[in-house]
Amino acid sequence: MINDKLPKIWYGGDYNPEQWDAPTWAEDERMFKLAGIDVATINVFSWAMLQPDEDTYDFSFLDAQMDRLYKSGTYVCLATSTAAHPAWMARKYPEVTQVDVKGRKRKFGGRHNSNMNSPIYRKFAERLASKLAERYKDHPALVAWHINNEISNYDYSEQSAAAFRVWLKKRYGSLDVVNKVWNTRFWGHTFYDWDEIVLPSELSEEWDGNNTNFQGLSLDFRRFMNDAHLECYLLEYNAIKKHCPNVQITTNLMGFYPGLNYFEWAEHLDVISWDNYPALDTPVSFTAMSHDLMRGLKSGQPFMLMEQTPSQQNWQPYNSLKRPGVMRLWSYQAVAHGADTVLFFQLRRSVGACEKYHGAVIEHVGHEHTRVFRETAELGRELQLLGDELLDARGEAKVGILYDWENRWAVELSSGPSVGLDYVNEIHKYYDALYQENIEADLIGLKEDFSKYKVIIAPVLYMLKPGVKEKIEAFVKAGGTFVTTYFSGIVNENDIVTLGGYPGELRNLLGIWAEEIDSLLPEMSNEIVMEKSWGELNGSYKCNLLCDLIHAEGAEVLARYGSDFYQGMPVLTANSFGEGKAYYVATSPDAAFLRGFLGNLCAEQNILPLVKAPEGIESVQRVKNGVSYLFLLNHTNGELSADIGSTERTDLLTGNKVSGTAAIPAHGVLILSDKK
Amino acid sequence: MINDKLPKIWYGGDYNPEQWDAPTWAEDERMFKLAGIDVATINVFSWAMLQPDEDTYDFSFLDAQMDRLYKSGTYVCLATSTAAHPAWMARKYPEVTQVDVKGRKRKFGGRHNSNMNSPIYRKFAERLASKLAERYKDHPALVAWHINNEISNYDYSEQSAAAFRVWLKKRYGSLDVVNKVWNTRFWGHTFYDWDEIVLPSELSEEWDGNNTNFQGLSLDFRRFMNDAHLECYLLEYNAIKKHCPNVQITTNLMGFYPGLNYFEWAEHLDVISWDNYPALDTPVSFTAMSHDLMRGLKSGQPFMLMEQTPSQQNWQPYNSLKRPGVMRLWSYQAVAHGADTVLFFQLRRSVGACEKYHGAVIEHVGHEHTRVFRETAELGRELQLLGDELLDARGEAKVGILYDWENRWAVELSSGPSVGLDYVNEIHKYYDALYQENIEADLIGLKEDFSKYKVIIAPVLYMLKPGVKEKIEAFVKAGGTFVTTYFSGIVNENDIVTLGGYPGELRNLLGIWAEEIDSLLPEMSNEIVMEKSWGELNGSYKCNLLCDLIHAEGAEVLARYGSDFYQGMPVLTANSFGEGKAYYVATSPDAAFLRGFLGNLCAEQNILPLVKAPEGIESVQRVKNGVSYLFLLNHTNGELSADIGSTERTDLLTGNKVSGTAAIPAHGVLILSDKK
Amino acid sequence: MINDKLPKIWYGGDYNPEQWDAPTWAEDERMFKLAGIDVATINVFSWAMLQPDEDTYDFSFLDAQMDRLYKSGTYVCLATSTAAHPAWMARKYPEVTQVDVKGRKRKFGGRHNSNMNSPIYRKFAERLASKLAERYKDHPALVAWHINNEISNYDYSEQSAAAFRVWLKKRYGSLDVVNKVWNTRFWGHTFYDWDEIVLPSELSEEWDGNNTNFQGLSLDFRRFMNDAHLECYLLEYNAIKKHCPNVQITTNLMGFYPGLNYFEWAEHLDVISWDNYPALDTPVSFTAMSHDLMRGLKSGQPFMLMEQTPSQQNWQPYNSLKRPGVMRLWSYQAVAHGADTVLFFQLRRSVGACEKYHGAVIEHVGHEHTRVFRETAELGRELQLLGDELLDARGEAKVGILYDWENRWAVELSSGPSVGLDYVNEIHKYYDALYQENIEADLIGLKEDFSKYKVIIAPVLYMLKPGVKEKIEAFVKAGGTFVTTYFSGIVNENDIVTLGGYPGELRNLLGIWAEEIDSLLPEMSNEIVMEKSWGELNGSYKCNLLCDLIHAEGAEVLARYGSDFYQGMPVLTANSFGEGKAYYVATSPDAAFLRGFLGNLCAEQNILPLVKAPEGIESVQRVKNGVSYLFLLNHTNGELSADIGSTERTDLLTGNKVSGTAAIPAHGVLILSDKK
Repeated sequence: MINDKLPKIWYGGDYNPEQWDAPTWAEDERMFKLAGIDVATINVFSWAMLQPDEDTYDFSFLDAQMDRLYKSGTYVCLATSTAAHPAWMARKYPEVTQVDVKGRKRKFGGRHNSNMNSPIYRKFAERLASKLAERYKDHPALVAWHINNEISNYDYSEQSAAAFRVWLKKRYGSLDVVNKVWNTRFWGHTFYDWDEIVLPSELSEEWDGNNTNFQGLSLDFRRFMNDAHLECYLLEYNAIKKHCPNVQITTNLMGFYPGLNYFEWAEHLDVISWDNYPALDTPVSFTAMSHDLMRGLKSGQPFMLMEQTPSQQNWQPYNSLKRPGVMRLWSYQAVAHGADTVLFFQLRRSVGACEKYHGAVIEHVGHEHTRVFRETAELGRELQLLGDELLDARGEAKVGILYDWENRWAVELSSGPSVGLDYVNEIHKYYDALYQENIEADLIGLKEDFSKYKVIIAPVLYMLKPGVKEKIEAFVKAGGTFVTTYFSGIVNENDIVTLGGYPGELRNLLGIWAEEIDSLLPEMSNEIVMEKSWGELNGSYKCNLLCDLIHAEGAEVLARYGSDFYQGMPVLTANSFGEGKAYYVATSPDAAFLRGFLGNLCAEQNILPLVKAPEGIESVQRVKNGVSYLFLLNHTNGELSADIGSTERTDLLTGNKVSGTAAIPAHGVLILSDKK
Repeated sequence: MINDKLPKIWYGGDYNPEQWDAPTWAEDERMFKLAGIDVATINVFSWAMLQPDEDTYDFSFLDAQMDRLYKSGTYVCLATSTAAHPAWMARKYPEVTQVDVKGRKRKFGGRHNSNMNSPIYRKFAERLASKLAERYKDHPALVAWHINNEISNYDYSEQSAAAFRVWLKKRYGSLDVVNKVWNTRFWGHTFYDWDEIVLPSELSEEWDGNNTNFQGLSLDFRRFMNDAHLECYLLEYNAIKKHCPNVQITTNLMGFYPGLNYFEWAEHLDVISWDNYPALDTPVSFTAMSHDLMRGLKSGQPFMLMEQTPSQQNWQPYNSLKRPGVMRLWSYQAVAHGADTVLFFQLRRSVGACEKYHGAVIEHVGHEHTRVFRETAELGRELQLLGDELLDARGEAKVGILYDWENRWAVELSSGPSVGLDYVNEIHKYYDALYQENIEADLIGLKEDFSKYKVIIAPVLYMLKPGVKEKIEAFVKAGGTFVTTYFSGIVNENDIVTLGGYPGELRNLLGIWAEEIDSLLPEMSNEIVMEKSWGELNGSYKCNLLCDLIHAEGAEVLARYGSDFYQGMPVLTANSFGEGKAYYVATSPDAAFLRGFLGNLCAEQNILPLVKAPEGIESVQRVKNGVSYLFLLNHTNGELSADIGSTERTDLLTGNKVSGTAAIPAHGVLILSDKK
Repeated sequence: MINDKLPKIWYGGDYNPEQWDAPTWAEDERMFKLAGIDVATINVFSWAMLQPDEDTYDFSFLDAQMDRLYKSGTYVCLATSTAAHPAWMARKYPEVTQVDVKGRKRKFGGRHNSNMNSPIYRKFAERLASKLAERYKDHPALVAWHINNEISNYDYSEQSAAAFRVWLKKRYGSLDVVNKVWNTRFWGHTFYDWDEIVLPSELSEEWDGNNTNFQGLSLDFRRFMNDAHLECYLLEYNAIKKHCPNVQITTNLMGFYPGLNYFEWAEHLDVISWDNYPALDTPVSFTAMSHDLMRGLKSGQPFMLMEQTPSQQNWQPYNSLKRPGVMRLWSYQAVAHGADTVLFFQLRRSVGACEKYHGAVIEHVGHEHTRVFRETAELGRELQLLGDELLDARGEAKVGILYDWENRWAVELSSGPSVGLDYVNEIHKYYDALYQENIEADLIGLKEDFSKYKVIIAPVLYMLKPGVKEKIEAFVKAGGTFVTTYFSGIVNENDIVTLGGYPGELRNLLGIWAEEIDSLLPEMSNEIVMEKSWGELNGSYKCNLLCDLIHAEGAEVLARYGSDFYQGMPVLTANSFGEGKAYYVATSPDAAFLRGFLGNLCAEQNILPLVKAPEGIESVQRVKNGVSYLFLLNHTNGELSADIGSTERTDLLTGNKVSGTAAIPAHGVLILSDKK
């Protein structure tokens, strides 16, 4: 439980009383009550108000808001305001603004705009967090700390360059090692002095986003930026913990945001929180996967849904409304995947600046007689009904999908073999196949305990860091089923190729050799032709993107290419290894193949679908104290039914008893407990 | 009349004798005569020649050209040459070059390249204008002054930043007000010192054109840039007027150019002039609307067509030739809409640099035996025939379409709800419907006298500035018909939302409440279903882009949405208000709906089509001293006929008498006077 | 022969032993032998290793490699390493890094990254070349010198600006001339002091690549950049020649690379070499044309294929494998067109940085049991078999196609008439028509001896430099057939229009006048309607892009436009001039027209196809000492046959005798000698 002051699914969201006046605050209180809102995230962007100049701090406004909210029954998730420095600071200390990837020194403006390697910025940020913690540590309204906000952006200032050199010295000890791991003999880039190393920007080695001349340098720069941001975060974290050790601390993450390695952050967050902003055309299984990734950051620990919109965004190209029922449906989707809070951005729409057309619980009209408010209030009532029943319940997936940010960076920075290769998209293909089969999966990092799983899938495991091979081999040896794909095992943690034949360190485990990698033009495809029927797999399937030309070296060939000059070469292999099996998928298959393939693997491991249900139904399960809560979510416009088996279950929202066929209304939700 | 020295439609255009020699000048004189050319715009880009260094002015060349032209029968529209500073000035005073929106200090190059907030630039520009005025004020060739040229571009230098702070102090008095009207509490952007304010560039709050974090700041920056340019213009204007009070002064505008608020400029121009460069695929009704906007700048006062090409442009992607007859047709289109001059860019093609493939009256071949010259000479003869008959004649439209540059800036800067929303395009949809119905319309600004009109249409009147609501209400109360649309009445002049429900201050007038705004993806649409037949409106029509979810609060519902979750909600309403009616169109309708809808409104107000004519015929009317001149323009390749009614009219170009059905040849023009 | 130490087609390529260790070198030696590799290009990017600081040079590694390679039977093409300066130099002397077209000072990074106008860079580059030459001039392994690498990129530093002013002074003598040839009276850009001239970057006159306000300035800047690069090259060239006069020197060019005028370079290269990297969808006739351009640089002298990939690239969007046989096929295509070497980038794949996924003879797997190695070794054996038979053999084309880099710059910089005009593409249309007809053609420069040819084709000869008109007229007068097109003869070498009617100086020769130029939108087309049948030309053909509206002034009209307002005007004309004929093609025709038209012209000159063959067969011929070597290349997946006539020929690769119908296997090659 995040905080036992509030033993239920928290409900509320971002709230900016500093943009309003007392009569409006009174209306807020009235409407929060109507909507069942019990948590407000405040102080997210108030630095300029709290510290009007270098020497002055003024907490009077915040004091009053904390008290007021507490009195009106609203708890506070208290932010530290460090996501945007004040204008006076940018003017007095230009070093706090960033230099961008184009080499341009920025002026005051925007947010996420601070040079995280500026000592001035660090000093002021830490000091502010410390003062806040000291002042509010015992405030009765306080239920959680929220550091900064959606931490992001890279900096290319000279201060960051200097810090990078220090970071490199610490990591590698000597320039000789740096030259070696970056392979600087290439293009004669040997460094003889640390100060010769410059950051990889458009002025040096990078261009157009993820293009670089030196993958090793660019990878280390990303690691360094991750660490620099994390250092800043920890300055605040430790300052708060010192004063206030018992309230959980978080910072709101952003799902698959590419810039930071959240697995490293997770160790330093008491609880994960994240902001969920699917677009109208985001596949619902992608949202589900994002929740599972956030849940996986701390090995299944429930997380906070820190932000979502009640209605629409403002920053997408076309900001369509969430259709009636969809806000509720997607809120329960979050809960189903492990969220113990349902929080919005934002509780009241602002009147000016760039987020004023972002949806809010309280719209510009200001009263409660809106569709959005009504839906919000209905959900508020339900969450009160649910009480603490679901809190801390966890999933019990037996399938893990490996996801690794450093691997993603390396894949994206790779020059060749195909610009069509999108790591997250390939991960999603496998996730989606399981999702459609109603089989639970976890998104897991490399440090996860593999023994929790029967099947581990690692699409495009391009980079093998030290110890990973051993860990995978141990998993398979002990009886696990492992699946990987083309473009795996190619490089080490510095993007240096493992010689001796692809897939490098995984060759032995997989029993194959990938001699060549063919890149298909977007309009091209090949076929996966099954050697014989296997479960639902039969005949041939489409594949595209990349085709490894592989040779079986001990592995069984389950399917072969259907065309081109490598027609007949293996495309799907299985290799027995110890008690387990390791599969290699040499190309990017279509959805039908993946559903059949993963369905077969799970069936063989006795991993069964949660339900039998038509497309459009999502099934998820959380378990606590031996009781399972089965969520059935209908993502379509019409009523659908699912076969939940013979066990009688109780719908937590209606009290209805259900077994056999369960009908789920359009955009509806069932939460079915098997508690006796 | 612009100048009674030349009581006819002026004919000629831009002319650069400084690029040529004496034998060529002699040829020019011969050919100008052949073509009936009587006005040359000279000295547009001669600063470097007139002022070879800081202390030297040399007018000998210009003296000679003025005399020569006058002697050969050509009058002069005299430009001031300030649209491009000399190279020596950029070198000696780098402050005269601009800093661009990317934060880059520019070097010498291009045109429209001066930092309009540079005191040096201002000093030299004013001085040059003054010297020219003093010298040529009584020159017999002089018929008009032409300041600068196509004034445009924004500057982001430190000098502009300093001037912006002064401008803000003057406008708002205190930083408290600035913080309030920009809503700087958002993202903690509170300013405590004027010097903390920086210009909204890519280094601070803006990116990718019309994207900004702070709409209020970005709006004020545009107002400031408009004013700064206008200040420069006025320095020249006043310097000229001081010496030469009786010759009209203009600067050539650019139709719907987004960067400046021409309604504010119009007050300071003696006569409007503009440059008309339709592309091959520009709808002819868009050109018509542009003329009407230019005419509307000074409430219907005739304007100068300052530039058009006789044949082709050079700067479009594909510079197709104007087909035979089209130059004449489009020249008369300008006259029909209020132009009292027909001027070209350019009289003789240059031999080098980037405009050498721009069409000219005298082509590179140099003689008169070209299609282009022949067509030019034929038109010259006709314009001589027309004499002063049409001069000063005006339109008498009873329909006004509101257009406002500040509203446009606000709509374009808006973050959400849809990138598909293009203000000018929405304006054009309404204009085009009337155009196709052969109903005259004016483009009018907010300061126009509304009582001249029976119907006023204000598409996407997003920003309501002080007094506008009252003015509209008074118009309707007095019996006027008012039409507005979705995304209207939302914000005040600082882009701050008017609380209490959309469309804000217009709610009472319109008798509706817009609860939500849905944004449709480009491939989506909805339907407008009529409650009952109304004139030609019947059944259902397509709509797209944005759909307001409105509630009638007193208004009559004329049509409802045909699909989606808001099927059945009102989409077209009418509200009686005093003696008049206010209509709300909650979405962006198709052309058939708009023609029917506006046709109905006009019919009810007894506003009748000028003629009955098939598509492809444009009809326009100018009136002087009780005589009406009906222009019929055939924009197609084949002969077409129009029904002009029973009144007998005389074709000014042929002397033919016409009544009933009038035949207009392919690409032909009739100018039909009803003078007895 | 490039070097008589190795009297055969050299086989090998780029090799970077500095990235490897001794055991790998031993493997390299073994595998080079297996593959028949006899030449390695080394030291391409070793500057940082050779000169670890300003005062130290260390050749020990290079000494050892030279010796080792020689001992193992591999000759060395020795590079000078100046294509990427060391990091220490960039830090100590920031002037060696470039300023880019966006005005940004670059830091250390990338390659082709040196400011070629930096005296420091020049000093160090020359010194390094000199030391290398002195040291290795007599090394037995040395067979060629390779200066720098793929020289490219423009610099916009102040040093380059200063050098540009010097260059201009030398070229034009006075500012008056500069002002005149750049037509700076346009937009008042007159210069009064040399220092007022700035480089044409995004900060001044250019934007978005090939867009400029002043074509004259931008043209001269390109000439200057060409010369500045060439000066740097010559510093190295002369330094080497001084010590080592008898070994040939080259630098590897890049085919149609737009940035440099290779015809000017060719005079300073002992032998042309180039890097051939067709994409999967590059037409094979485009590759053929590129080879012919490289061959044409030195009037037909055989060249070096310096780089190609054995399998795939890494830097294309989709890096598809070369299908089996294609590497061999394209290698012979190079030989057929004049290559006397077949060299790869690279002999061994690197393990890190951005080219590690570029194909290599030795793949990451490290052994010889790969498809790629097997194909490489097979080709190696064949090249040994061929010995010196083909060396120094030359083509004997009677058709020349004019190609000129300065003309290309002028066409690309032109503002108008159409962005669709791509000079190289228009050249390729004509080349491809001859290619499909199996007629040999040379790509030739303006300085070529025209009398070698019966037909000269000059598509889009927009710029006529001094003497060119006279040279063309002399060619035709003497009986030659000359073909040119729309947009020819328009300007002089400074992009100043030749007045008096297009096509300017060519009017008399062509007997026509082009009154106007119409630009067609991409979806538009017109027709070429033949006046009467002519050979295979009959009826009508499509055309598009640009349409000159021409008048015959003595020329015979062979075809007329089929539509639009210029229907019936001439589109194809022929003018007798002296003993020859000059043709004008007034638009861009389709392929069928061009095959018929050029086929007719060749037939009339008794220029016969090499063979009769279906599409997919390429035929090329080299001749030495009266013996002709006919290459037949099958670019398709299936066997095809060609009719080679009755002469019996011997296939050099098989010894088979062939006459009449010759079958060429899928992706196969015949080299048929007519030696008795």
